[in-house]
Amino acid sequence: MTSILEKVNQPQDLKNLSMEQLTALSNEIREVIIHKVNATGGHLAPNLGLVEATVAMHYVFNSPEDKMVYDVSHQCYTHKILTGRKENFLDPAKYQAISGYTNPQESAHDSFFVGHTSTAPSLAVGLAKARDLQGQKHNIIAVIGDGSLSGGEAFEGLDNAAELNSNIIIVVNDNDMCIAPNSGGLYRNLTQLRQTKGAAPCNFFKSLGLDYVYVDDGHDMQALVQAFKQVKDTPRPTVVHIHTVKGKGCPAAQNDPETFHFIAPGQLTEAPSAPQPTYASLTVDYLLEKRRQDPRIITITPATPGAYGLTPQMRAQFGDGFTDVGIAEEHAVAYASALAKGGAKPVLQVLSSFVQRTYDQLSQDWALNNNPAVLLVHWGGISGGDATHLGCFDIPLISNIPNIVYLAPTGKKEYLAMLDWALKQNKYPVAIRVPFGPVADNGASEEKDYSLLNKFQVVTPGSEVAVLGLGNFLHLGQAVCRQLQETAGIKPTLINPRYMSGLDGELLESLKANHRLVLTLEDGCLSGGFGEKVASFYGNSSMRVLNFGAQKEFTDRIPLDQLYTRFHLTKELICQDALACLKTLK
Amino acid sequence: MTSILEKVNQPQDLKNLSMEQLTALSNEIREVIIHKVNATGGHLAPNLGLVEATVAMHYVFNSPEDKMVYDVSHQCYTHKILTGRKENFLDPAKYQAISGYTNPQESAHDSFFVGHTSTAPSLAVGLAKARDLQGQKHNIIAVIGDGSLSGGEAFEGLDNAAELNSNIIIVVNDNDMCIAPNSGGLYRNLTQLRQTKGAAPCNFFKSLGLDYVYVDDGHDMQALVQAFKQVKDTPRPTVVHIHTVKGKGCPAAQNDPETFHFIAPGQLTEAPSAPQPTYASLTVDYLLEKRRQDPRIITITPATPGAYGLTPQMRAQFGDGFTDVGIAEEHAVAYASALAKGGAKPVLQVLSSFVQRTYDQLSQDWALNNNPAVLLVHWGGISGGDATHLGCFDIPLISNIPNIVYLAPTGKKEYLAMLDWALKQNKYPVAIRVPFGPVADNGASEEKDYSLLNKFQVVTPGSEVAVLGLGNFLHLGQAVCRQLQETAGIKPTLINPRYMSGLDGELLESLKANHRLVLTLEDGCLSGGFGEKVASFYGNSSMRVLNFGAQKEFTDRIPLDQLYTRFHLTKELICQDALACLKTLK
Repeated sequence: MTSILEKVNQPQDLKNLSMEQLTALSNEIREVIIHKVNATGGHLAPNLGLVEATVAMHYVFNSPEDKMVYDVSHQCYTHKILTGRKENFLDPAKYQAISGYTNPQESAHDSFFVGHTSTAPSLAVGLAKARDLQGQKHNIIAVIGDGSLSGGEAFEGLDNAAELNSNIIIVVNDNDMCIAPNSGGLYRNLTQLRQTKGAAPCNFFKSLGLDYVYVDDGHDMQALVQAFKQVKDTPRPTVVHIHTVKGKGCPAAQNDPETFHFIAPGQLTEAPSAPQPTYASLTVDYLLEKRRQDPRIITITPATPGAYGLTPQMRAQFGDGFTDVGIAEEHAVAYASALAKGGAKPVLQVLSSFVQRTYDQLSQDWALNNNPAVLLVHWGGISGGDATHLGCFDIPLISNIPNIVYLAPTGKKEYLAMLDWALKQNKYPVAIRVPFGPVADNGASEEKDYSLLNKFQVVTPGSEVAVLGLGNFLHLGQAVCRQLQETAGIKPTLINPRYMSGLDGELLESLKANHRLVLTLEDGCLSGGFGEKVASFYGNSSMRVLNFGAQKEFTDRIPLDQLYTRFHLTKELICQDALACLKTLK
Repeated sequence: MTSILEKVNQPQDLKNLSMEQLTALSNEIREVIIHKVNATGGHLAPNLGLVEATVAMHYVFNSPEDKMVYDVSHQCYTHKILTGRKENFLDPAKYQAISGYTNPQESAHDSFFVGHTSTAPSLAVGLAKARDLQGQKHNIIAVIGDGSLSGGEAFEGLDNAAELNSNIIIVVNDNDMCIAPNSGGLYRNLTQLRQTKGAAPCNFFKSLGLDYVYVDDGHDMQALVQAFKQVKDTPRPTVVHIHTVKGKGCPAAQNDPETFHFIAPGQLTEAPSAPQPTYASLTVDYLLEKRRQDPRIITITPATPGAYGLTPQMRAQFGDGFTDVGIAEEHAVAYASALAKGGAKPVLQVLSSFVQRTYDQLSQDWALNNNPAVLLVHWGGISGGDATHLGCFDIPLISNIPNIVYLAPTGKKEYLAMLDWALKQNKYPVAIRVPFGPVADNGASEEKDYSLLNKFQVVTPGSEVAVLGLGNFLHLGQAVCRQLQETAGIKPTLINPRYMSGLDGELLESLKANHRLVLTLEDGCLSGGFGEKVASFYGNSSMRVLNFGAQKEFTDRIPLDQLYTRFHLTKELICQDALACLKTLK
């Protein structure tokens, strides 16, 4: 362990250090972060940009009495190192014991579980108001990146912060980057403010009624400490706009902050492996080909184009046929709907966890208007990831909105066929849950025309038991069928429902003739999902129905195999439940 | 009919009129609107403020080639009168044939169904981009009120509008009012802009990269026409900031634009009737009393305090214990969650239709953080209203989010008991669906402690059939029970589920002993709702389950009795279905 960090365990350990020591400590922390993140994977560039500012904040303010709220909290590693959690960055055996985001269960220095963007101003306003109602006096500090400012919730929070007649400090960490380059007129104003060292008279923050302080070098400890001392205990809502370098101190990340925003283990030190086809790359290839034929095709991403294989090179190939709207999911949905209304062919790509940010836009701007935009939902499915980024709520979210056709392809060919149909048709708002995992085909045959809504597909006819394997889980359904045959001599009917937003009443009705049990398998939360609708359908009959999927809970970094066991999502456990149910029938 | 309007049927009929005639026409239209809205009810003050501007827009631009997108579209009456629908404002027999909002099914001059706020900039950006992709040249005009600017989606849209290198005109109709007075620092900038006649160097719109034109008198036809001619065919994203008077020309509305924002039939001309207790007034009285005892109590509304009985006088009594955040539902939820985290006792009040604007905040900012804020959802239930303002989606929306306890009180005493418990407890995020309709008690006994989650209440024990009457529909359940007894001699068990976010497995299990059929009744959309969960629970048994509630559709101004018949939500139809099902059992 290096010399200064060795003696720093809590924020108070900073208080007697000199500016030089604080700077040296920052350099040590930076090395620790680079080493640890390269080992485990994680957010690299955002953390490197905020090392000095975090050290300066903990030097000037008194956490946890003073409250710090980190937006997204993907830049909180220095904060964690300084608040009792440095061993989790130094000792490989303890790497996995903490989350990559702030987490109140880990430390009193963390006020909130945070993982989605643009929430810090609002959360900080709430803490400030609670303080005021109780006659307390501490500082409330929100830390938000320039990229997150484009999100509507951040604007609502800033606008309302100005209505507080009391202390709130909003540190704007401006590295002139979102995950990808920023999008939005606001960023021209930030550029102007950086160029004039904060003196430009037209100032977004001041236009919202906020006091304003500018720090030109967000890595200069002296300047940071001075600025934070200046605003400490201010009785006014105040922005401290600090200019930082994303990826600071790591040449690879500094040169290519988009690629090194979040890295895989070893990404800094190992040669990249040859790219494999993914559902993202299939999508890009397909859309690019379509775009060459039809200039009305446009693909839209809200701030995470890289997640869909839309690298800068690919984006250039789309030209006018690509819009990254920045962190602005709500705008993205309304924009896509209006593009379709205006005669264009929009394909909006969103991650399952972030599509949550747009319910009202999906419903009002899109579904109610019945505009034939196409929505691709990526990374939908039960995951072993962070509670803030689960992909298991999009089926209840989207499939219960009227008018939307929500499709569940099971593999490559079916996915591309559905995408092709969705783009060709002009009648429905169509959402597709892009399969998750390695590219595969699962035995379902694709069709050209999906306009006969809610027509389920019988993959293998059988009797006694019918297995509805939805989307990603058709393969699980196949395994269950094999297992039932092998262990109980039952030859079940395997069905690919294909549609998540409606039922095939005719097919379900016909199953009554020679089936006694229906199993539904869905890669998402059961509550409000697909299986419950099937159970409701059979409510007036003697058909038994067992629904398999995720329970309603925010699971946090629980390995997928453990979740599958917990939720009875293995072929063995499903068969066991099925046979137990059949037994009650005689 | 008066002289000029008589000759005006379509926008082209304006083209040869003089400024004086356009002004006279505006006055005629204003009288028509006042008369019609007083007869039918509707948005009064917002429409009166935009008469001249709408006439000027239709004089300068060429709708429907040029596209106008009205935010909320509650100010579109003049637009409708000028685009072929004046008879619907002149002939009482035709009053009800059109919607109070823009509606593409009514006219090619309406691009979108709109009823929620803050969407116009995004929708207009989409239309503009579609135009550009297709090499077309028309103007795109968004019209948005100052009140709607506080909504995050509006900000996202404006920020992205600036990225268009082409024509988009955003008319900001600034009457210095939201529904209630504006809230947010932004409004100080708008005041400054009005005071300097648009010359203040710090300019919110310019800070977003938008060109800017100011019109000091938004009722001066000459000035409006000149401004719109100036920006017509502009190749740049441009804001036209017009200063108008909300309620212009109607003294009552001008003096009290909050009360006369939306009026009931006759409100302008008839004496107000004595106020009756409502669930809103009960809530205000309860909270005010609590606030007197505990300064940590705070109630929060997003822009519609009047809907909850929070008149200016009442708000004054709450003092610091009231925040109207403006149109900013996302902020409201995060703010409430953080208030609870900081030790305050927040009660956030939202309409069912608008709670949709906050799914991600309910999930991430609130539920995941498990902060004990209280959410009151008003006006939840199947309604005969506009497709844009349905109250039937909040059960699927909220009850499928982990951690949230969503309660369904059935009457006054139970509601107040649940609210009392929600405020006292410190463990759960609690949402309460405030009963809808006249204040009543429905036979359910209240409890002091609801912390034994998902404990259903047996109101009347019986056998053969169990009726689960959720919230507003307990009374329907009672009627069904009586009807079953009278017509079939069955004495059913009546159950008040009380919790919408979870099932009472023990009670449901026990029903199997002497019941063969369970009926679930919910005042909301079935898809993703409560009944389907009950059906799923009984999937492995011989229990029959029939779910009653609304089908998944955007119903638009269909009378409630028709909807109840369509959805089989009368005691007669429910009993008929129940008896038919029982018949299949022998």
